[in-house]
Amino acid sequence: MLDYLSAPRAGILAAMHRVLEERAALFDAVAPGTGEDAARRLDAYTARGKLLRGCLVRTGFELAAGRTATPDESGMLDNAGAAMELFQSGLLIHDDIMDRDSLRRGMPTMHVSWAESLHRDGHMEPEHHGNSLAICEGDLAYFIGFDLLATLPAPQSSIAAVCALAARELSLVGIAQMQDVLNGAMAADTDEEAILRLYRYKTGRYTFSLPLCLGATLAGADTAALDALSLAGEDLGVLFQIKDDELGLFGDTAELGKPVGADIRENKRTLHRQRLFSACPAEHLGRLASIFGNGTPDASDIAFVRERAETLGVRASLADTMRWYGARAMDRMAPLLSGSTLPAALTMRELVTYSLERRS
Amino acid sequence: MLDYLSAPRAGILAAMHRVLEERAALFDAVAPGTGEDAARRLDAYTARGKLLRGCLVRTGFELAAGRTATPDESGMLDNAGAAMELFQSGLLIHDDIMDRDSLRRGMPTMHVSWAESLHRDGHMEPEHHGNSLAICEGDLAYFIGFDLLATLPAPQSSIAAVCALAARELSLVGIAQMQDVLNGAMAADTDEEAILRLYRYKTGRYTFSLPLCLGATLAGADTAALDALSLAGEDLGVLFQIKDDELGLFGDTAELGKPVGADIRENKRTLHRQRLFSACPAEHLGRLASIFGNGTPDASDIAFVRERAETLGVRASLADTMRWYGARAMDRMAPLLSGSTLPAALTMRELVTYSLERRS
Repeated sequence: MLDYLSAPRAGILAAMHRVLEERAALFDAVAPGTGEDAARRLDAYTARGKLLRGCLVRTGFELAAGRTATPDESGMLDNAGAAMELFQSGLLIHDDIMDRDSLRRGMPTMHVSWAESLHRDGHMEPEHHGNSLAICEGDLAYFIGFDLLATLPAPQSSIAAVCALAARELSLVGIAQMQDVLNGAMAADTDEEAILRLYRYKTGRYTFSLPLCLGATLAGADTAALDALSLAGEDLGVLFQIKDDELGLFGDTAELGKPVGADIRENKRTLHRQRLFSACPAEHLGRLASIFGNGTPDASDIAFVRERAETLGVRASLADTMRWYGARAMDRMAPLLSGSTLPAALTMRELVTYSLERRS
Repeated sequence: MLDYLSAPRAGILAAMHRVLEERAALFDAVAPGTGEDAARRLDAYTARGKLLRGCLVRTGFELAAGRTATPDESGMLDNAGAAMELFQSGLLIHDDIMDRDSLRRGMPTMHVSWAESLHRDGHMEPEHHGNSLAICEGDLAYFIGFDLLATLPAPQSSIAAVCALAARELSLVGIAQMQDVLNGAMAADTDEEAILRLYRYKTGRYTFSLPLCLGATLAGADTAALDALSLAGEDLGVLFQIKDDELGLFGDTAELGKPVGADIRENKRTLHRQRLFSACPAEHLGRLASIFGNGTPDASDIAFVRERAETLGVRASLADTMRWYGARAMDRMAPLLSGSTLPAALTMRELVTYSLERRS
């Protein structure tokens, strides 16, 4: 299932390797050794991702074109997908510095990896300079991403449009990220509307709407098609994020590949947490509040939160919410999907079911 | 003098205010209050600059077009200039985090300004979160810059070309910045060639070649004209940077608006320092080495360095080097300048004399 979605992975990776290898030579003229090192690290970092965003570029193209892409078009879409993944790397590299995370995809984060190298080579203040080099690597990822988009083998008008689209949506992600930082810095109360807004922008528009619309723009889509994909993407993203929150509490550590309960430990402002606190009767609020954000929730704490979420109907209400968003996403995409037997159309329909049922 | 160069300032500022005001409304839909705050801070930060890079866009356009810009074209060039200045803000904001600088243009740097706001509002860990928000502000500046370039009222082919040019050159600046960080982190020896390479990329190609070529591209310049401006820009940048180094040692604190001797304190790998250490006889090397990078050079230390630089002929040799680069810049631009009475052409000729003689 979803084989269609992941099919472009190899092409995207090849496109990224190619551009980073070309750039490495150029970078080495500026700073011998350092240039190649920087490009190689960015390549390895990006290649470890699932590449969902990069792969969705083809889906958007084929849905808008109403046909599968030719081999030439696929080459162009691989480059656009590689740009999408470089943007994602830039955001994650900077995000990891802000969150002081040391692991990403089972490997050291970019700033930690640079700090380890500096430490090994006897440099001064490896942590600070590791952060600095990772800030630069993130910047570099954005610039190479725009470089790729601006040089796509596509009509000039499409190039201007995809550059504008990516720049605009990335700026919205930047603002959502700032709000996330502020929320973390002040531990303030928030509300369901504010949480859903961040889900819509950070996960929805960025993870789904942007790559789908990039692909559709390259297919010459009209405004109606772009609007449909953009709005459906927001819904898919919200559904996806709520499922992520659910797995973060009810999932299986082994299946997930990351520890269950991390959101509780970090007191993350999830929709799950919001509804749990809203529904919780006064006598249990104290225990809940002491568990969230205390840094070391144990198994009995997590069991208590799970039990409360089930008993108070929070889990069920979130499942309803997810189904509602899934249904609306399909409605919004209906003009592009109805009657179509394209793999892209079939996959989008499957994606909702998959998103509701996935276990990792 | 150089009135021509600074003439577009007001138009560039107006273009930047306009785009940031428009974006502020969009950002506020993502994160009410935060969006507007982020845009306002970026606007104030950018407006405090000299806007040299933004202004050079018009110079490049008029040199390549062989005529002055029409009012419509000027509007387009103001937008491109604003993009250039936003890129510069992004780089400086990130740079200040890396250098842990607290002042920029007489005002708090972006991360310090955010940290002060967070502290005032009682947020937790204001320094860390201030850095995080400043990383986001820098990212935002890049994204809005590309957004501006991608939506210029220009032919679609020019838009793709300017986006590609900016992305490519910014990636080279990123690499040069990484080399700077590594040099600072390891206090390793370097050589004249490596120093000049960083001057060429960080100051030359970025400060001069990129804005001149952006403007020329918007004028539909051919490859020969672009190459001439690009190479001349490298030379002007090297000249400019060596002069900056000289003023950093021989300048007047009041005229400069920043303390003389800062490069000595930070042990910056300037061409000046390199030639001084090369020319210095063994018996004075110990004192020189103890002055550079010791954190607190006093007036007698600075007087000693100045005296050595004069006596050993370092100052004179650097003046020769600057004149050589100035002459080569003029040679390289000759096809665009010779016989021209355009203000742009006259100003480029004046720029070399000005660069050699400026006192701040």
